[in-house]
Amino acid sequence: MTNAPPLDFQVLARDGEARACVLNTRRGVIETPVFMPVGTAGTVKGIRFEELESPDLDARIILGNTYHLWLRPGIETIKALGGLHKFIGWDRAMLTDSGGFQVWSLGKLRKITEAGTEFRSHIDGSPCFLSPEISMEVQSVLGAEIAMAFDECAPGEATHDEARRSMELTLRWAKRSKEAFDLAQVANLRAVESRAPETQIDNLYYRQALFGIIQGASHLDLRRESLERTVEIGFDGYAIGGLSVGEEKRVMMEVIKEVAPQMPADKPRYLMGVGTPEDLIEAVARGVDMFDCVLPTRNGRNGQAFTSRGKLNIKNARYTTDQMPLDEACNCSVCRRHSRAYIRHLYQSGEMLASILLTHHNLAFFLDTMKRVRQAIRSDQFAQFRREYTEQLNSGLEA
Amino acid sequence: MTNAPPLDFQVLARDGEARACVLNTRRGVIETPVFMPVGTAGTVKGIRFEELESPDLDARIILGNTYHLWLRPGIETIKALGGLHKFIGWDRAMLTDSGGFQVWSLGKLRKITEAGTEFRSHIDGSPCFLSPEISMEVQSVLGAEIAMAFDECAPGEATHDEARRSMELTLRWAKRSKEAFDLAQVANLRAVESRAPETQIDNLYYRQALFGIIQGASHLDLRRESLERTVEIGFDGYAIGGLSVGEEKRVMMEVIKEVAPQMPADKPRYLMGVGTPEDLIEAVARGVDMFDCVLPTRNGRNGQAFTSRGKLNIKNARYTTDQMPLDEACNCSVCRRHSRAYIRHLYQSGEMLASILLTHHNLAFFLDTMKRVRQAIRSDQFAQFRREYTEQLNSGLEA
Repeated sequence: MTNAPPLDFQVLARDGEARACVLNTRRGVIETPVFMPVGTAGTVKGIRFEELESPDLDARIILGNTYHLWLRPGIETIKALGGLHKFIGWDRAMLTDSGGFQVWSLGKLRKITEAGTEFRSHIDGSPCFLSPEISMEVQSVLGAEIAMAFDECAPGEATHDEARRSMELTLRWAKRSKEAFDLAQVANLRAVESRAPETQIDNLYYRQALFGIIQGASHLDLRRESLERTVEIGFDGYAIGGLSVGEEKRVMMEVIKEVAPQMPADKPRYLMGVGTPEDLIEAVARGVDMFDCVLPTRNGRNGQAFTSRGKLNIKNARYTTDQMPLDEACNCSVCRRHSRAYIRHLYQSGEMLASILLTHHNLAFFLDTMKRVRQAIRSDQFAQFRREYTEQLNSGLEA
Repeated sequence: MTNAPPLDFQVLARDGEARACVLNTRRGVIETPVFMPVGTAGTVKGIRFEELESPDLDARIILGNTYHLWLRPGIETIKALGGLHKFIGWDRAMLTDSGGFQVWSLGKLRKITEAGTEFRSHIDGSPCFLSPEISMEVQSVLGAEIAMAFDECAPGEATHDEARRSMELTLRWAKRSKEAFDLAQVANLRAVESRAPETQIDNLYYRQALFGIIQGASHLDLRRESLERTVEIGFDGYAIGGLSVGEEKRVMMEVIKEVAPQMPADKPRYLMGVGTPEDLIEAVARGVDMFDCVLPTRNGRNGQAFTSRGKLNIKNARYTTDQMPLDEACNCSVCRRHSRAYIRHLYQSGEMLASILLTHHNLAFFLDTMKRVRQAIRSDQFAQFRREYTEQLNSGLEA
């Protein structure tokens, strides 16, 4: 039982390097390539779970941030409430990050040592310490289907020496993450087995999956080495970390092109924190399966809509009496009902509904894009889809 | 055609002074007593129209504020977009206030003359002027099923002299409102008739209804006189204005008790801007049919839930690990899914979803209360319902 794989992963179709796969978790089936909306503090900002589950969006997996949830409401509270799914009322799959990137991005507020990262809470400034062991303990309480190893990120412009030092630390932390994770999983299984049989639901898949993270900044030799040595440690899936952190887009695509096709073919490949619709399509073309990004939610709150013809800034006065939906080609509930003029009015008036509607549409657009990507790969038409989608995206709504 | 009544109103059942009625509008049937969510700037803050239409809430009529919509996006924009319903994407009934109360409540920013009210915009400080004629013109462009006469409100503590002066002005403004309104309606009808026959939809009910407003502050003799003389002018319905503006609750109930039962029995009776669940029940007991209030939405955004056992302040630390729903007796989608602990976490984290969930629940609670009120009146059990509902409300969730 304890040796059963936590995830059942199968490649269904390939089209060039692009692949359509299926990921079975104990909380539902996830078809890939998949986009995961970001639920930082136990909520995907500005949208109800009912909407995420609706046919408009049908998000099969969302992200939770260990750093945020650990600080607030705190792990004791989430434990008392039965884990993250139960606490927030979401019964589909989740992935939690390790907190590594979040504390790294605190900048001057943190200090990284061999043991882990010392930092000050962004909420009350109190001193905190996060390590591979603590992250694994926290993530095992959160109980997402997929947990992430605790890593260090190097800045986009890191020199070869800096990037190597950071990569080596990440590898040592990866080993410690795996050991701590396995111990936590055994403890969890024992806790489950000690319950009455009728409450031992889903034992087969009770074990969480753990993904390792490939680092190495923009240095392709380090990226290759990081991949090789991370795979040696052995994880249930692999992620490319440390991209979209200040490097040029050309550099990001070079790293993805170099790394993604070399990642184990029989495990999920996850590109962390990326990106725009164009980025997603290009990364899929290199064999990536999973994505997360705050763009659809954060930019939505800031008045930006993603559409099939490029970005639309709802603050623009040209939309004052525009009766068109955000995206003519979109069939989401926002585009079926509301005009650009109305959403612009809401935004200008500081109404919460502006954020709600833009968030909904943007997530619908990202999730629909991935649905179309999956269909294209399965029908061996991904190359054509990629060309047409990108052309339309660049046809310039606001040019 | 032009003489057809804009509203078809029937009393279905009486139980003491309480009454259950039905109001047919060209945008659907409204059963009363009814609570109207407030949609100030073309949105009921924090909730999507789909939710307002869902069985959870089933709001049949919402409010729009002339003052806010007139200032932003402005009447030319709304006209260009085909009126308020079309602009915001709401196809059920609406009522617009006249702007009289809104500009009155600007306090030092406004100056009231015989002609109307001079004030400065709360948005950019620019000088504005609102009068009965302008309000009617604006409301006829907004196109709600029910428009309100332009009135002046007197403060709760107004002396007899002050209240008489204000009431007399309101009566003169009521006459001017009616005259201007009738002219606007004729112009609207001509505009409709000049269209091709296939676009002349719903001509019978195309005329909007206009309600008169009874003032007189806390002085019962003035309230009686205001009622009598407003009815003489002749409106499609009557409203009690100038309550919940600083007077004691005892005084408010005295006015309602004096005025409501004397209002024309064959027309809708609307109590403006009131109130708590207790207030609604007590006003229904005096024969009021219609209500609007910002409490469920505004207090929801401030962390307060209305429940069958009284108010709940979600900021309270006692809810940190409370797995109960906001209201055990509530069957709304929020209470079916989420715990107090989760909503408290969202509130403490400054997450928009806290406002969204509390707003939804509070509106569900107000609208469900009115549904139960209607059922009780129809089955001749209102007195019992009133006693039990009030007792439970006072049983003290947080005592």
